[in-house]
Amino acid sequence: MTGHNSNFFILQNYQISKPMSSIELKKISTRAPKEWDKEETKKKTAKILEELDELQNLLFAESKHSVLVVIQGMDGSGKDGLIRNVLGNMNPQGVMVKSYKAPTAEELSHDFLWRIHQHVPAKGMIQVFNRSHYEDILVTRVHKWCDDTTAKKRMKAINDFEELIQEHNHTHILKFYLHISPEEQQERLHERLKDPAKMWKYNEKDFEEAKLWDIYMQMYEECFENCNKVPWTIVPADQNWYKEYIVAAQLHDVLKHLEMQYPGLKK
Amino acid sequence: MTGHNSNFFILQNYQISKPMSSIELKKISTRAPKEWDKEETKKKTAKILEELDELQNLLFAESKHSVLVVIQGMDGSGKDGLIRNVLGNMNPQGVMVKSYKAPTAEELSHDFLWRIHQHVPAKGMIQVFNRSHYEDILVTRVHKWCDDTTAKKRMKAINDFEELIQEHNHTHILKFYLHISPEEQQERLHERLKDPAKMWKYNEKDFEEAKLWDIYMQMYEECFENCNKVPWTIVPADQNWYKEYIVAAQLHDVLKHLEMQYPGLKK
Repeated sequence: MTGHNSNFFILQNYQISKPMSSIELKKISTRAPKEWDKEETKKKTAKILEELDELQNLLFAESKHSVLVVIQGMDGSGKDGLIRNVLGNMNPQGVMVKSYKAPTAEELSHDFLWRIHQHVPAKGMIQVFNRSHYEDILVTRVHKWCDDTTAKKRMKAINDFEELIQEHNHTHILKFYLHISPEEQQERLHERLKDPAKMWKYNEKDFEEAKLWDIYMQMYEECFENCNKVPWTIVPADQNWYKEYIVAAQLHDVLKHLEMQYPGLKK
Repeated sequence: MTGHNSNFFILQNYQISKPMSSIELKKISTRAPKEWDKEETKKKTAKILEELDELQNLLFAESKHSVLVVIQGMDGSGKDGLIRNVLGNMNPQGVMVKSYKAPTAEELSHDFLWRIHQHVPAKGMIQVFNRSHYEDILVTRVHKWCDDTTAKKRMKAINDFEELIQEHNHTHILKFYLHISPEEQQERLHERLKDPAKMWKYNEKDFEEAKLWDIYMQMYEECFENCNKVPWTIVPADQNWYKEYIVAAQLHDVLKHLEMQYPGLKK
């Protein structure tokens, strides 16, 4: 994050852009700073979203740059809500969302980046990944489907891949980890048992996965250490209003600094 | 090429598997060695093709490995004929051919490897590229659409990409450069003006491209120097019977050494 806006000081602290061997997620707060005003922030977010809509239109019109937004986080961390409320606020013609689930048989018969590369953004587009290639060094490691040697090779391949789309297609990559506490996760998973509008998300296996919290955190930490040529942003995500603000503000900041302009009449 | 078959001594000399800064294509013969017997070679090729058909079936059945055959060469070097006579001899269910032409608008709005990655072989498959990602450091450089800095970055990206599919999907990559002389090229291009079965291939622009022979050779030489983690084979290609033998034999050699076996009954 650039330092020109003092609102970003917290974000800046949490952004990982250099090799770090000592990051401990449990030492990073999952909540907004105490002094942070909820209503004030919501107003700011609304204003940012308005500007984002215009910036995205410009991105689309100019068709020079593209943006890839990678969203990772534990079950219940609010990925879907973030997409709906922040990314879904722009013209869907220029914003595409790809949700990565367990790979299909056809996907498994290719290298792990094959299904990812197909969906990188064309010039002018914003592409959102709801989960991503990072699952191949997260859930797969937690369940020991992927050994450490393979994981290391995958990390290198991921770094090469991100370099490829950055260098060769003006793709700006933003990587967000939605950071919630295990307590908040439990609360949200249980809500799915009660709220009719959330029941469709209920999956009893999520409770089994939740028991693997610590090992997931370790794998995330190793991921941040090894795949940070493109920096990660750790987004405190226990409060949706704060999470949405952080992501919207960062996307806004990136788009704002592209120095884009509407092309004139075609000759 | 492994050294277990003395037939391959010529091939071996021409295979580039280490950084070489001194390769000069014009010093490499485009013809079979004088003592090489045409009829004998054709018989050998026929036998190899029979075995290839069986080996490909095994590759498909086992679905553990995959093979990518990259074919490059100047206009008239015999890429189409090679595909028809050697690769086309196997079960088309397990052999796919992708011909790369000038990129479409959609392809140009992505990184140059985007359209390539989509067509890498699934496990069990043989994929043939008729022209390939290498055009992005060949024709593009000859015509100055791609500067040297970009070319260097593309070479790195190509090496990373080939490593990706090798390491992460058991893909065996064979890269063939069909090496013809400029005289042979002229003869073949002129044939297209006369032979009704070849007229469809005639393109007057090919004669313009042919004038750029020397700069093409230089770009090929730089390509071989910089993108050889996966070795290239320079195939003397003025005589089709020799070219077909070399490629068939090398593909056979690779498949033979995969130690494949038919899976038993599924449990």
